[in-house]
Amino acid sequence: MSRPSGRPVDQLRPVTLTPGFAKYAEGSCLAKFGETHVLCTASVEEKVPPFLRNTGAGWITAEYGMLPRSTHTRTEREAARGKQSGRTQEIQRLIGRSLRAICDLKALGERQIKIDCDVLQADGGTRTASITGSYVALHLALRGLVDQKLIPVLPLRDQVAAVSCGIYNGVPVLDLDYPEDSAAEADANFVLTATGRIVEIQATAEEAPFAEEQFAELLKLARKGIAELARLQRAAVGLGGL
Amino acid sequence: MSRPSGRPVDQLRPVTLTPGFAKYAEGSCLAKFGETHVLCTASVEEKVPPFLRNTGAGWITAEYGMLPRSTHTRTEREAARGKQSGRTQEIQRLIGRSLRAICDLKALGERQIKIDCDVLQADGGTRTASITGSYVALHLALRGLVDQKLIPVLPLRDQVAAVSCGIYNGVPVLDLDYPEDSAAEADANFVLTATGRIVEIQATAEEAPFAEEQFAELLKLARKGIAELARLQRAAVGLGGL
Amino acid sequence: MSRPSGRPVDQLRPVTLTPGFAKYAEGSCLAKFGETHVLCTASVEEKVPPFLRNTGAGWITAEYGMLPRSTHTRTEREAARGKQSGRTQEIQRLIGRSLRAICDLKALGERQIKIDCDVLQADGGTRTASITGSYVALHLALRGLVDQKLIPVLPLRDQVAAVSCGIYNGVPVLDLDYPEDSAAEADANFVLTATGRIVEIQATAEEAPFAEEQFAELLKLARKGIAELARLQRAAVGLGGL
Amino acid sequence: MSRPSGRPVDQLRPVTLTPGFAKYAEGSCLAKFGETHVLCTASVEEKVPPFLRNTGAGWITAEYGMLPRSTHTRTEREAARGKQSGRTQEIQRLIGRSLRAICDLKALGERQIKIDCDVLQADGGTRTASITGSYVALHLALRGLVDQKLIPVLPLRDQVAAVSCGIYNGVPVLDLDYPEDSAAEADANFVLTATGRIVEIQATAEEAPFAEEQFAELLKLARKGIAELARLQRAAVGLGGL
Amino acid sequence: MSRPSGRPVDQLRPVTLTPGFAKYAEGSCLAKFGETHVLCTASVEEKVPPFLRNTGAGWITAEYGMLPRSTHTRTEREAARGKQSGRTQEIQRLIGRSLRAICDLKALGERQIKIDCDVLQADGGTRTASITGSYVALHLALRGLVDQKLIPVLPLRDQVAAVSCGIYNGVPVLDLDYPEDSAAEADANFVLTATGRIVEIQATAEEAPFAEEQFAELLKLARKGIAELARLQRAAVGLGGL
Amino acid sequence: MSRPSGRPVDQLRPVTLTPGFAKYAEGSCLAKFGETHVLCTASVEEKVPPFLRNTGAGWITAEYGMLPRSTHTRTEREAARGKQSGRTQEIQRLIGRSLRAICDLKALGERQIKIDCDVLQADGGTRTASITGSYVALHLALRGLVDQKLIPVLPLRDQVAAVSCGIYNGVPVLDLDYPEDSAAEADANFVLTATGRIVEIQATAEEAPFAEEQFAELLKLARKGIAELARLQRAAVGLGGL
Repeated sequence: MSRPSGRPVDQLRPVTLTPGFAKYAEGSCLAKFGETHVLCTASVEEKVPPFLRNTGAGWITAEYGMLPRSTHTRTEREAARGKQSGRTQEIQRLIGRSLRAICDLKALGERQIKIDCDVLQADGGTRTASITGSYVALHLALRGLVDQKLIPVLPLRDQVAAVSCGIYNGVPVLDLDYPEDSAAEADANFVLTATGRIVEIQATAEEAPFAEEQFAELLKLARKGIAELARLQRAAVGLGGL
Repeated sequence: MSRPSGRPVDQLRPVTLTPGFAKYAEGSCLAKFGETHVLCTASVEEKVPPFLRNTGAGWITAEYGMLPRSTHTRTEREAARGKQSGRTQEIQRLIGRSLRAICDLKALGERQIKIDCDVLQADGGTRTASITGSYVALHLALRGLVDQKLIPVLPLRDQVAAVSCGIYNGVPVLDLDYPEDSAAEADANFVLTATGRIVEIQATAEEAPFAEEQFAELLKLARKGIAELARLQRAAVGLGGL
Repeated sequence: MSRPSGRPVDQLRPVTLTPGFAKYAEGSCLAKFGETHVLCTASVEEKVPPFLRNTGAGWITAEYGMLPRSTHTRTEREAARGKQSGRTQEIQRLIGRSLRAICDLKALGERQIKIDCDVLQADGGTRTASITGSYVALHLALRGLVDQKLIPVLPLRDQVAAVSCGIYNGVPVLDLDYPEDSAAEADANFVLTATGRIVEIQATAEEAPFAEEQFAELLKLARKGIAELARLQRAAVGLGGL
Repeated sequence: MSRPSGRPVDQLRPVTLTPGFAKYAEGSCLAKFGETHVLCTASVEEKVPPFLRNTGAGWITAEYGMLPRSTHTRTEREAARGKQSGRTQEIQRLIGRSLRAICDLKALGERQIKIDCDVLQADGGTRTASITGSYVALHLALRGLVDQKLIPVLPLRDQVAAVSCGIYNGVPVLDLDYPEDSAAEADANFVLTATGRIVEIQATAEEAPFAEEQFAELLKLARKGIAELARLQRAAVGLGGL
Repeated sequence: MSRPSGRPVDQLRPVTLTPGFAKYAEGSCLAKFGETHVLCTASVEEKVPPFLRNTGAGWITAEYGMLPRSTHTRTEREAARGKQSGRTQEIQRLIGRSLRAICDLKALGERQIKIDCDVLQADGGTRTASITGSYVALHLALRGLVDQKLIPVLPLRDQVAAVSCGIYNGVPVLDLDYPEDSAAEADANFVLTATGRIVEIQATAEEAPFAEEQFAELLKLARKGIAELARLQRAAVGLGGL
Repeated sequence: MSRPSGRPVDQLRPVTLTPGFAKYAEGSCLAKFGETHVLCTASVEEKVPPFLRNTGAGWITAEYGMLPRSTHTRTEREAARGKQSGRTQEIQRLIGRSLRAICDLKALGERQIKIDCDVLQADGGTRTASITGSYVALHLALRGLVDQKLIPVLPLRDQVAAVSCGIYNGVPVLDLDYPEDSAAEADANFVLTATGRIVEIQATAEEAPFAEEQFAELLKLARKGIAELARLQRAAVGLGGL
């Protein structure tokens, strides 16, 4: 079997994480996974949703969108349609949960970080690129709070990154691009920490149910990819030596 | 550790699947998982969404809703609010995908089955009860098509059922009820076929990331539960001897 | 003339009012008028709409919905459509007004009762079944407030029930079922108290205007039906001896 | 008892029906009931709603709105709010039903008349003024179709008019104005034909249920008012001699 | 060249400004520019939008709507459609800005004036008639505040009026009516003060870009028209001698 | 007077127009006016809106959006809010009109060009940057149609570009950035052709009406800026020698 891109089965696309890409945001990162480009920003707000008022705890939430012509053929603009699709809502809920899982919300204090992930160009894997880049944006925004002495230390317990894997032509492969994604028999999104723990797994049979052994293969590939992504994240936030 | 319900860790709640509960639907099932009660109906429509017209293939889609007072405290009515929540959309997309994965849509012919899952009472696990009950409703609706000689045989490749598992007080347990669900460290929804293949896995760390070994434990519990649910499904559709 | 159901012109369908059907609601009733089944719940909230704040008076409001496949052919889900139909709004306003008319809102105190009427199965007369069942749910919820000593006595001045009558094949008949309702020349919904006073009348010529004498006949039939319904309500709330 | 306006209990407010008030509509009427002013227009469209296509039958439908400052204090604009209230929907459904009840829709042919009732000034009784004025607008639009030889004769079986009555300070009175309407113990809207038949009755207890005898009084007052309104309608459409 | 109406190029349509047309509004004016009729009302509210709270300053905002049959063929009702068109929003924003530009919002005090412009009949130039009439409504409402001694003097720095001009058959003309407007090569709306200063200019090439000299011609025509409109406004508010 | 940026009054910010920035669109341009960055894409669709079907003529339409954190403080996402603001609608209507004014829609043939302008970073002048960049995107998309021999020649009659001018501290200046825009006494957007003709002018007094002489100054500055922008557009589309 050969992949459309010619990559080995366990190779990520070229990934770059550019910190500070957005001029005004408290934290930001342009995440590129090959031709998939996502601009992630983190905005700090000094108030929390109603259910957290007076609890001392903070919150992290996320929104996701695609530019209409980020895709091969134009996608309808959600603002013009008047509502976000089910897919958009699923993705933004996933991003928020993933980041909250590695943040100490008590230590964050009663403030909210709003993550925005906007897809400038889409070639598969936009949700996993969003999570991976958002971690960098979040880290930088939190460091700003430390620098301003609003919190004493970074309220992060771990790093989180994400990657998709799938079964393409019967073979498990890492980091699906669009041609693979649209033809895969199954695909799975893995959100893992740098220390190898599971934050979220979403595995879906696209055409036919698949075997547990295949799932185990996908998880193994994901571990390899996440280790590489975590290294790139550390470099992006200036902790290359970790 | 003891579960609030006193159940062993690998025991389902009492489950009943009542076929034909709804008078007018082509197929229906009232699925009860303990105090969680979901009415699942399958409606046959002799037309398909635009993207399938003139392809000869059919479609299965699902909608999900909760009665406002199915919950411990009243939940706002989505029709009054004017939109479905992200959670509702996530669930109904999951139900649709799960059923499509075991159906031969070509053999179904150019018609659509609309599944409605309405939660009459909610005590945790409404999405997994919905999938499990919907399979029965779908099976019965399809059998009606066979009986009317609209299709020659049942276009089903397998059975599909679902169950949630979670880590409660550090221990993996099967089929979370609401008190467990709201306190679990992690929870995972497994959608598997009767033959043990994976249709969908959604695993989420609620508080802190968890280890791969724990995930493996959850999957093992799910397999046991699904085997029991598949047996109950067969009985509900009158195939008890399988 | 004979009715499709074979009933005499002044006979109700078999009616059952099952109190306490919903596990979590403060008051509830499953109202069955033949094949029309409506689940009515009453939820107590310790706050009132803005226009009543600091007046000491309470409020009763209602919402109404139909399960998509409660009907002979599937009806679109209002939550998916994004708005409630004019018919739904008319019905829920009617239910609320009917219950408020027999309740002493001052004596209720500054709290709100939210009634939910969800039609599980529809065979004509869903709005009148909703009112009749909601009275039981409301009564039970209010009794709970008395039992908790939040109010000293039941703030109810009377009982309220409802029934539809219509002119079918030229003949006035009581309690239309769907086959009658869809063919009736006129139909009228009567909301009356147990003591025979008028709460609401809505009479409509479906095809051609009708005479005052016919209207008088319909009202007479309604009185007979309401007396029977009021007796069943008393039994349902445990006041059979009244 | 004396009414705020000093009118006898059975006296209408000064009513004028000005035909042809709107320059562009196929039929129109400015209906004034005292300080309540409603502009009614009838627009002819040569197509029908989907459920009537190829049936040969026509349709009449209505929309209703209030100018934001037609009321004593400003009312929110429904177009700005993004939806029509339940009250608006109730009223426009009532207007449509009332007009359809006296029209031979088969004889109208496969075309639709859209009625618009816009309240320029509101002092109670806007829905009954709307129905009374809309009849004139409809009549004129239909006469235009006859004049153009699109239909051979007026497809009207009767005239329809409407008036509200209510119990004010314990006394039944005809044609409530706003001060009466807001203080009435009960009010009822009667839609009757010129020949005295019932098209629609909506009677509501505002504060406490009322007796059948009181209802009979209200109906009697309505008959007197409707007879006068029907005479004014005939004059407005140029049939004064009838 | 001759205009469809036979008017000279620099002649307004017959304009009347009827103050006090609406019974309940604090200020009102029916503005007629030929067959274009707009009812303008000004409602005083003793609260301001959130961004002005505790600033001591007031606000003026506007809403605009057209009756469905104000137009030659019926226009869809925005309240029924569920949203205001882009055109409506553009116009109401323009009306608000135009009035705020000549009002001393500090001197108005912390209150809001809501302007409603409702088009009863449309024959071109509804937005300019709206602005011209709204000034009168605003003036009257503000005078009411002075009369009640809520503010010491009228917080108006100038008068504002508006007119459209356009290039019709190659010739610049004043005050386009609908036949001209729909065939114009360019049109421009001018909002000027009585003292000749510019509040807003919106000039648009409908078919082909136009020359600066033509624009200068349009502005010259507008000055002439505005001077006449300002005189009529003074008469309407009872300041004919100014 | 000195401008915050230190620019002379008649100097544009550094402007770059990067053609082909978006990988998938038929035409695209990243337009940078200083710190204002707008991504403009042109998508070709082989069908037209209903009002143009079977006319042989084409259409150009535009949509506009801002990334939530393109601004100094985060702006709410319109897709999450469920509707586009009045400002957004005004801008996208302006972009569409501006481009249509220089295109021969008959020669385009029965197809539609959809322009998307998405603001990645906002520092004033986003609408004028959008128009200027969209011309480049449109030009490139149309050239693609010529290259594919779908149309024989470019259906463009002229170039169009836009710039804002304003009165800042009493002095007319060219190309407002955000600090100037938010403090300007008046601002005006000019949309002109390369040959100096007027496509659209929108001039607004922000605080107080301004004099005609000032307006003339603004127009003069705009002419200078547009000439420079038109030169940059020609270079961007590879017509540098023009």
